[in-house]
Amino acid sequence: MIVIISNKVSEERVNEIVQHIEKYEVQAHVSKGVDRTVIGIIGKADPKLAEQLRQLSGVEQVVKISKSYKLASRDFHPADTVIKIKDVEIGGEQLVIMGGPCAVESPEQIDEIARLVKASGAQVLRGGAFKPRTGPYSFQGVGVEGLVMMAEAGKKHGLLTITEVMTPEYVDVCAEYADILQVGTRNMQNFDLLRKLGTIKTPVLLKRGFSSTYDEFLNAAEYILAGGNPNVMLCERGIRTFEPYTRNTLDLAAIPALQTLSHLPVISDPSHGTGRRELVEPMCKASVAAGANGLIVEMHTDPDNSMTGDGVQSLFPEQFAKLMVDLEKLAPLCGKSFDTQKSFVTA
Amino acid sequence: MIVIISNKVSEERVNEIVQHIEKYEVQAHVSKGVDRTVIGIIGKADPKLAEQLRQLSGVEQVVKISKSYKLASRDFHPADTVIKIKDVEIGGEQLVIMGGPCAVESPEQIDEIARLVKASGAQVLRGGAFKPRTGPYSFQGVGVEGLVMMAEAGKKHGLLTITEVMTPEYVDVCAEYADILQVGTRNMQNFDLLRKLGTIKTPVLLKRGFSSTYDEFLNAAEYILAGGNPNVMLCERGIRTFEPYTRNTLDLAAIPALQTLSHLPVISDPSHGTGRRELVEPMCKASVAAGANGLIVEMHTDPDNSMTGDGVQSLFPEQFAKLMVDLEKLAPLCGKSFDTQKSFVTA
Amino acid sequence: MIVIISNKVSEERVNEIVQHIEKYEVQAHVSKGVDRTVIGIIGKADPKLAEQLRQLSGVEQVVKISKSYKLASRDFHPADTVIKIKDVEIGGEQLVIMGGPCAVESPEQIDEIARLVKASGAQVLRGGAFKPRTGPYSFQGVGVEGLVMMAEAGKKHGLLTITEVMTPEYVDVCAEYADILQVGTRNMQNFDLLRKLGTIKTPVLLKRGFSSTYDEFLNAAEYILAGGNPNVMLCERGIRTFEPYTRNTLDLAAIPALQTLSHLPVISDPSHGTGRRELVEPMCKASVAAGANGLIVEMHTDPDNSMTGDGVQSLFPEQFAKLMVDLEKLAPLCGKSFDTQKSFVTA
Amino acid sequence: MIVIISNKVSEERVNEIVQHIEKYEVQAHVSKGVDRTVIGIIGKADPKLAEQLRQLSGVEQVVKISKSYKLASRDFHPADTVIKIKDVEIGGEQLVIMGGPCAVESPEQIDEIARLVKASGAQVLRGGAFKPRTGPYSFQGVGVEGLVMMAEAGKKHGLLTITEVMTPEYVDVCAEYADILQVGTRNMQNFDLLRKLGTIKTPVLLKRGFSSTYDEFLNAAEYILAGGNPNVMLCERGIRTFEPYTRNTLDLAAIPALQTLSHLPVISDPSHGTGRRELVEPMCKASVAAGANGLIVEMHTDPDNSMTGDGVQSLFPEQFAKLMVDLEKLAPLCGKSFDTQKSFVTA
Repeated sequence: MIVIISNKVSEERVNEIVQHIEKYEVQAHVSKGVDRTVIGIIGKADPKLAEQLRQLSGVEQVVKISKSYKLASRDFHPADTVIKIKDVEIGGEQLVIMGGPCAVESPEQIDEIARLVKASGAQVLRGGAFKPRTGPYSFQGVGVEGLVMMAEAGKKHGLLTITEVMTPEYVDVCAEYADILQVGTRNMQNFDLLRKLGTIKTPVLLKRGFSSTYDEFLNAAEYILAGGNPNVMLCERGIRTFEPYTRNTLDLAAIPALQTLSHLPVISDPSHGTGRRELVEPMCKASVAAGANGLIVEMHTDPDNSMTGDGVQSLFPEQFAKLMVDLEKLAPLCGKSFDTQKSFVTA
Repeated sequence: MIVIISNKVSEERVNEIVQHIEKYEVQAHVSKGVDRTVIGIIGKADPKLAEQLRQLSGVEQVVKISKSYKLASRDFHPADTVIKIKDVEIGGEQLVIMGGPCAVESPEQIDEIARLVKASGAQVLRGGAFKPRTGPYSFQGVGVEGLVMMAEAGKKHGLLTITEVMTPEYVDVCAEYADILQVGTRNMQNFDLLRKLGTIKTPVLLKRGFSSTYDEFLNAAEYILAGGNPNVMLCERGIRTFEPYTRNTLDLAAIPALQTLSHLPVISDPSHGTGRRELVEPMCKASVAAGANGLIVEMHTDPDNSMTGDGVQSLFPEQFAKLMVDLEKLAPLCGKSFDTQKSFVTA
Repeated sequence: MIVIISNKVSEERVNEIVQHIEKYEVQAHVSKGVDRTVIGIIGKADPKLAEQLRQLSGVEQVVKISKSYKLASRDFHPADTVIKIKDVEIGGEQLVIMGGPCAVESPEQIDEIARLVKASGAQVLRGGAFKPRTGPYSFQGVGVEGLVMMAEAGKKHGLLTITEVMTPEYVDVCAEYADILQVGTRNMQNFDLLRKLGTIKTPVLLKRGFSSTYDEFLNAAEYILAGGNPNVMLCERGIRTFEPYTRNTLDLAAIPALQTLSHLPVISDPSHGTGRRELVEPMCKASVAAGANGLIVEMHTDPDNSMTGDGVQSLFPEQFAKLMVDLEKLAPLCGKSFDTQKSFVTA
Repeated sequence: MIVIISNKVSEERVNEIVQHIEKYEVQAHVSKGVDRTVIGIIGKADPKLAEQLRQLSGVEQVVKISKSYKLASRDFHPADTVIKIKDVEIGGEQLVIMGGPCAVESPEQIDEIARLVKASGAQVLRGGAFKPRTGPYSFQGVGVEGLVMMAEAGKKHGLLTITEVMTPEYVDVCAEYADILQVGTRNMQNFDLLRKLGTIKTPVLLKRGFSSTYDEFLNAAEYILAGGNPNVMLCERGIRTFEPYTRNTLDLAAIPALQTLSHLPVISDPSHGTGRRELVEPMCKASVAAGANGLIVEMHTDPDNSMTGDGVQSLFPEQFAKLMVDLEKLAPLCGKSFDTQKSFVTA
């Protein structure tokens, strides 16, 4: 059970409500967000408690949810969450495509790729300025400068931008330059990062941990939601299995499953999900057929010389453009709309 | 490298060829099929050997293949294999749908389901007479009688039939009654069963072991092919992972990956692949979008009372019919044809 | 709940008991063994049923067990099962060591290895005559001749023998030559093979499927037990995980876990469990410390030229001998006895 | 290949060396630590380069290592690393035991448990002040106050202390109060945290990610080492597999494997590795038999009421004491020493 309290209510009153709850021998966990405070009640509650709480002054809503995640669950929020950023709506009818390189490498590189992404009809430019790398001697991204390059390219070509943030202290600067912040697979349970992202309103694309269950995934989203940021999208990016042929095993059943369990938009990442260029296109189509709200796809003008060595999973620009044309036909059969000729984002 | 020899060639001559090969300090493994003998050469061969072998009398073909599986590889057979059974072609343009219950339960049950499968536009009736069950006290199938019931229902309604065979000694009787024999996931590496299936010509649907790699899967197919039965189709049915929400994780990237590595048709099984009714429909569509040659789908008129307890993953007849209508629209966008009004199989 | 009926009771009487059970609206699954018939009752039984059944003539025992496996569970048989073969007792205080090559290759090879196994103090000679191989062109074992070679080597050197059986039709000939029959990891759910093994009394070492849960493992054992063969030992041989460094991940917690759930002896196989020679010795010691009843270890006089290519996980004879000396010291600290100087088996 | 440069060398000189390296068309990645700078050379280097670099002024050492991790590899540092903290040596002959509760709950709780840990002969007190929890509504630890309580308990009873640090900004305060800092399994690839830990000298216990390979694990350690902190110990704590009976699958082969690949001490965590109290004791013994340098074990005076709900894997004090007595006997057979009567740490 969760209790929602507006932040116009005084802290004193919140404490009184907590004390009231604790008389029923259950635990009350208070999550203070920007707009509202959520009290999660853990333990077996007396059926009368919900009734009483609804009558207390200051209490906005009382919802019975037995899952460990509450704000992320469809029980709490039956309608789909639609995240609106400028002219783009993620989570509604629109199929949203995010394309771009693994890493921002130079102003020229990101500008040229942005031009191609836009020309193909996609709405969002992806690119990493900070790169999480397995080893310390690998290229770690160009850093803050990359944020600037990407913001400029996005602005020039009329694209939203998404970039990865790796640590709480960089959340603010990333949010200054990018429209969407991405949490990478290795950071899905970096709880201090999640808490920090809960304190802002910038939309977050949360990637599933490569060995995380749906339940853990939705609990990670709950950290952000409970902090007060409702703009979370979930991203299936493949899980680790025994199969060595693909980099990961893209779990497409996660798309309808997460949409059943939660109201949050679900994005698919076939680039990391397969790690092989020739599998990206069929897996993009399959993702849309499975009901994905969007795709995030790596594209590079010179994949063989990409600085992260991830070029092997990047589409060539002409493959990306061809894919967009195919998706335009496929989308309407899957209850989505996608128009490669329409410019969604006003520069 | 493999050497193909027609079976019109005498055994003596085959032995001479083997002796010739062994002079080159490599191993020669002879697989005697019905129509031809295949000699697999293992070890690093002198480049001159291939040239010499091509000139030997009796040798039909010499193919250099470095993979452990050879006849199953696309290197050996660049064109798609199309398996023709009556009016149905599996592996070509036609999208092939196999529908039916987990287990044959009674003549009335299988007759009624066959009628519905046919009415929905599918071409093949599935149903188990012998059921592999985790525990010995579970319902183990109705046995040979089930084969008879199913054959009659298929004949009456103009459907091909597919059923599972679990042990070498039942191959012949199953092949007498069914059009396609299925090897279950637990038997993918039951090598004696595979060898026996290599001695007949009845098409085989080989399910991927629930923890088998693509390489092991194609090597299992190789056992059947090397025995002389070229009519093998591969079936992705989900792999075992850490995720508890779904019964298995359906690995849809396996579809294009296997089609790249091999020329054999690839069928998808979203029923076992997800284990949840509400995920079957989106995963069927995703499978077709990923390029599957066909689907095998559980449907039951009374899933709550199915004798195997697998009803939870069976579609209701109206869901199955609706799915067929949707697939008819989707197929052409995925390079396939599927017509629910056309009767493919002449009774 | 299970009902045990002696086989001296007529089939007619068994049917009457079944009819009695079915009046209670539960399912009765009859498993006819050599010495006794076991009726498994599936479904929620009326508490009065057990009481009534105990009073029926012909019923020997009625045991309430909620697990899907029953005869394999510790609830059914609280004391440890000890399997006695000649002078060797498996499952009791004795630590039992099975050593030998992956495959029997020649009379000289198996004789020499048997001599070394015996000299080191082990009690059982392992060796495969039939080899399950991923691909059809690999060495498949020397076949029945290998059984003869091994039986002779075992007899000459005073060792028990264990060999793998892959298909029901070879069970009888393998049982004629070997003291213990091994079911390989790929055949753990080859149910027809398990059923056949239930009809004999030769002890069976059942290897855990490389992706099977404890529950599935014990259900596989249940097939053999329900058939009437009580002489089953369980073998942990590593499971498939994402880690590429080792061939498998040896799950040593399975040893105490299986001993808690079941009364059957548990043997550990560090050779297949790690696939790397240098890890075999520490994992043998760890297995004994974890409470294993025995070990099965690959040893070869010329591992680099072993015919299966598995030599990389085989110990050299001097490593095997040194390991036995170490285990002799370790065993008493782990509640076991092991004496390398004592000849356990009378030739 | 890596190049080690003392930090007494000027930054200018380092840049000159880098420029020299880059003439050879390879990449030079500079990691600046407190005492030394490490230049990792990525790419195929001319054999002459190493020779030339050794002669450059400022270069201390040039080591050829082909693995992606270098400082962590045994090639770089053939002898075992022994971390000395007060009277305790981790990585040498001494078997080191870390015991205590999952979470610090109150001064009384941690004091009483510390007394019992010490009385049993262990050397280190474990306890979490900051707890990483799957969901935001669970108990998140008592925070900085917990650090104080634990430091006092350790000091009073003559125990070293270890506690988890979750985010870079808390590294300094944790290092002020605790002798060893623990990085949890979810943070193994929290690269900013690892980098921060590289800037201090406090010993770090790095837990293996629950789905990380040995290679990724050692690369994570490399981040800390490359930063300049040589005091890293590796902790195997179980990996995620398909088996539901245990919380994780404790991969004991990781112990000798990591000791082969690396010179760093390896600690085993059977509490998280199994998640079941009854499996902790056999897995502790198995870990020592496998060669572990130490154990970290949960013990609680009132596990049923532990605040994290992890009590099910905590030993009772009497079980912990009994285990120490058993390990004292086992250690010498495994090349280690452990004396429950000796007080290792001077208060």
